[in-house]
Amino acid sequence: KNKGCLLVRCPDRPGIVASISRFLFQYNANIITSNQYSTNPEGGDFFIRIEFASPSLHENRNEIKKSFEAIAENFSMDWKMTFPSEVKRTAIFVSKELHCIRELLFEWQSGDLMTEIVVVISNHQEAKELVEGFGIPFLHLPASKENRREVETQQLKWLEEYQVDLIVLARYMQILTPVFVEAHPKKIINIHHSFLPAFVGARPYDRAYQRGVKLIGATGHYVTNDLDEGPIIEQDINRVDHTDNIEDMKKIGRSIERSVLARSVKWHIEDRIIVDGNKTIVF
Amino acid sequence: KNKGCLLVRCPDRPGIVASISRFLFQYNANIITSNQYSTNPEGGDFFIRIEFASPSLHENRNEIKKSFEAIAENFSMDWKMTFPSEVKRTAIFVSKELHCIRELLFEWQSGDLMTEIVVVISNHQEAKELVEGFGIPFLHLPASKENRREVETQQLKWLEEYQVDLIVLARYMQILTPVFVEAHPKKIINIHHSFLPAFVGARPYDRAYQRGVKLIGATGHYVTNDLDEGPIIEQDINRVDHTDNIEDMKKIGRSIERSVLARSVKWHIEDRIIVDGNKTIVF
Amino acid sequence: KNKGCLLVRCPDRPGIVASISRFLFQYNANIITSNQYSTNPEGGDFFIRIEFASPSLHENRNEIKKSFEAIAENFSMDWKMTFPSEVKRTAIFVSKELHCIRELLFEWQSGDLMTEIVVVISNHQEAKELVEGFGIPFLHLPASKENRREVETQQLKWLEEYQVDLIVLARYMQILTPVFVEAHPKKIINIHHSFLPAFVGARPYDRAYQRGVKLIGATGHYVTNDLDEGPIIEQDINRVDHTDNIEDMKKIGRSIERSVLARSVKWHIEDRIIVDGNKTIVF
Amino acid sequence: KNKGCLLVRCPDRPGIVASISRFLFQYNANIITSNQYSTNPEGGDFFIRIEFASPSLHENRNEIKKSFEAIAENFSMDWKMTFPSEVKRTAIFVSKELHCIRELLFEWQSGDLMTEIVVVISNHQEAKELVEGFGIPFLHLPASKENRREVETQQLKWLEEYQVDLIVLARYMQILTPVFVEAHPKKIINIHHSFLPAFVGARPYDRAYQRGVKLIGATGHYVTNDLDEGPIIEQDINRVDHTDNIEDMKKIGRSIERSVLARSVKWHIEDRIIVDGNKTIVF
Repeated sequence: KNKGCLLVRCPDRPGIVASISRFLFQYNANIITSNQYSTNPEGGDFFIRIEFASPSLHENRNEIKKSFEAIAENFSMDWKMTFPSEVKRTAIFVSKELHCIRELLFEWQSGDLMTEIVVVISNHQEAKELVEGFGIPFLHLPASKENRREVETQQLKWLEEYQVDLIVLARYMQILTPVFVEAHPKKIINIHHSFLPAFVGARPYDRAYQRGVKLIGATGHYVTNDLDEGPIIEQDINRVDHTDNIEDMKKIGRSIERSVLARSVKWHIEDRIIVDGNKTIVF
Repeated sequence: KNKGCLLVRCPDRPGIVASISRFLFQYNANIITSNQYSTNPEGGDFFIRIEFASPSLHENRNEIKKSFEAIAENFSMDWKMTFPSEVKRTAIFVSKELHCIRELLFEWQSGDLMTEIVVVISNHQEAKELVEGFGIPFLHLPASKENRREVETQQLKWLEEYQVDLIVLARYMQILTPVFVEAHPKKIINIHHSFLPAFVGARPYDRAYQRGVKLIGATGHYVTNDLDEGPIIEQDINRVDHTDNIEDMKKIGRSIERSVLARSVKWHIEDRIIVDGNKTIVF
Repeated sequence: KNKGCLLVRCPDRPGIVASISRFLFQYNANIITSNQYSTNPEGGDFFIRIEFASPSLHENRNEIKKSFEAIAENFSMDWKMTFPSEVKRTAIFVSKELHCIRELLFEWQSGDLMTEIVVVISNHQEAKELVEGFGIPFLHLPASKENRREVETQQLKWLEEYQVDLIVLARYMQILTPVFVEAHPKKIINIHHSFLPAFVGARPYDRAYQRGVKLIGATGHYVTNDLDEGPIIEQDINRVDHTDNIEDMKKIGRSIERSVLARSVKWHIEDRIIVDGNKTIVF
Repeated sequence: KNKGCLLVRCPDRPGIVASISRFLFQYNANIITSNQYSTNPEGGDFFIRIEFASPSLHENRNEIKKSFEAIAENFSMDWKMTFPSEVKRTAIFVSKELHCIRELLFEWQSGDLMTEIVVVISNHQEAKELVEGFGIPFLHLPASKENRREVETQQLKWLEEYQVDLIVLARYMQILTPVFVEAHPKKIINIHHSFLPAFVGARPYDRAYQRGVKLIGATGHYVTNDLDEGPIIEQDINRVDHTDNIEDMKKIGRSIERSVLARSVKWHIEDRIIVDGNKTIVF
């Protein structure tokens, strides 16, 4: 199609929107949606996301990108121009629990997740039948603390072969090494089964049960080298009470996890997210 | 202060944002927040709300308003430019139940409702002490179906005397005549104690109880001449179950009513709402 | 297993719990959970649900049922004693939209829906592959207003053949005749895609969009002969705003519909629901 | 009135409900509501809360209490029988922020909080006018780390003078010493302005902002000697996004804090809470 999306981050000062909008107008582009945010109009950072459409955008897109560079330089912009017609290629990592990958596959099948799911990688066999039923390659490689290095080397090779743009950890349950994480910065989305920063690390439902909380939650976030400390994309919670044991909490948690992960992935795919240090701007 | 707010509605076509942002740039204005929406980029309606700041805005505001007219005409805009420094003058109408007016008064006292509450008008005496404790004039006039005409005549006179910009019906419980409503179009906000369009009209909690619903709600809306059919500003709900009788529902409902009304009034006061036919755009 | 569930409704008066609990104690039964509710301790109706366990319940269950009759008669009880080991047999009716049946099938596969799904009946082919992938018989019969009578006759025959205890309309989109409904009283659960009683009938999302509501919802209810007027089991909502068009609302609505329907079916299967006129008591 | 409330905790075994209900029946008591919970029907702990009414309960209440001792001993019960007619006496501690105490006072004034608020104690003067406006004694004593010991000695004396049953810390902002806490075990309710166990300790909104969370919350809990580690009574959250700065979070947080605290206090006053180690059973 003839749609584009511009994501910008730069020091705030007067004239940014005027320049961008005049630029788009010159290319006969109509602004479909536009969202902006400034940490502080005086001396802060400015962020904007613009979806636009232009009759011959598909043909001109490289030219437009090229000519935007002058504006970008003038305002010291950190920027990205993407085109929905260039669909992102997604890999899903999964272990034994299937509720998250199932949600992603069905949202994708329903047309609500505009990406290509090119490969599923797992250290277990549980997801094989489901994944192959969708006609998606399923690559299996047992992983543990011992063989982490070799496993990751193979996984990185696969990700390159499949030209992957986004990696979704759909309850993958393995910790990634810095080598892996740095190979795909701001490109790995994880679902953590607690309301971060509560219950960082392992067995969050057990600990939530021990603490006697009245709400449990889930967090979708980008993976960094600090465990469960990456920029949060989305969170949600559900109510529990004294009658819910750990198993009940896990069951209730599964429905939060899958919807939080699906929203996080959707927003990334639609280029709605700008990572700002350890936070996210979600437009 | 040197802040302004521009609200625009016009037929969508390329160049609107470019024109507005160039205009603001010429006046040395920095855009603080900007939200826009288009019903359809091709042939639809375009809406935008821009908060901006400019060093000498306070002195130049009439000039800026004047010079915006050229752009407005060019794009056939329906528009409004307001200045937070020109505080809106609000009247509250109330009957016997005080939870909604109490919430408004405390939000106002905490500085979360940037308006001047210039007068409270009631057909009962219940609110008198509370209102006068805040140093606000309390005008009392018994109202009923019989004397509606004379009562409204007096009320309209009062509203004029107090130069009222906004009328909030904080559980006023009297139906207004078309004469009254038309004297203050899009300026009267009501809280209806149900999730509209469910339970239009009288005694919604009784009917919710009879119907056996599992959620009850409240709706903040502009008043038009069709009872409970005006543009909805905000709605919210709370969970109920079989153990809740009508009194319990009213109690639960009160906390929804007061927060929904407070949000509705706040958004109006901050010029966040554009009425679009029977709907609202809330930026 | 050795578990049982007792559901009782009778006029409230002192001694009911004492009698029931003494009865269970005599059979060496431990009460696992017990919930009760009285519309009015003086002259109202009393409802109780007790889950209990007893070492040799499986062998004695007919005897226990038999001997409870004396108590039931004494207190004029309307009662039911069920045993989780006697799994309910469920039929799902579906049309073209698959999100609801998919949710049910996956909850069932995950062990969160303790029923046997014995057959799926549809007037379209869309669900065939999905259903048969789960090894469940899929029966297809085109239905329309014209052939409703013959279609229902065949469907009723099938329901008898498969000895169905519960019929779930997972977005079936056809109106059932009184003949069909009366053949399975309080045994048909429907998901209506609005927050009842708002938007009874067809095209609720279109009408929600036209009305400009800020929340959309879904309702799980038992089917009676008054369209969308049956006892409500569960409702939930989600927030929408002016940017959501009808398609967006449908998408947002789908996730509410499927969770509301799944909860409604789960509660029925676990014998948590007592229908009280046009309302439900959900324990 | 002739109402009573029985709270019981004991090792689970068959016959508990039978014994209690027979006992109540003998005293001609009708069970109004009854809730029970077992951590494990085999070898776990059993909890029950029963509200009952009996024609001459007011006169017989000491006799009933006395004669229940035999049952209690038989089942090794930890129990309490209370009578709503014996209203609890509550003290509120407050510092400078008034939103929580205001909510409590208005819920109390509306008849939704069935307690006597006998005194308000503060280390600041901000609440004085509000509190005295309700005709409640306001006692002021500046408190800081330095004079904590003397201040608490005076406060404990006041609590004894006013015969206080419950102490509510409505954003009191001072840490209590073990001496104070142990003088009123399970009788001090605090509102913490975060979703515990996230952001234990000081300045939770600042830290929530730094972490970039998408939801903020509040927690009502009993005070123990471990800071913010006491049994949680109630929690709730609200959504925030990147546009909310610390001040916005505090504002949004205030409305959660006040409703969570009000619910926590209400449940305590209605004897709905059983503390079980570091958790609460809320019936």
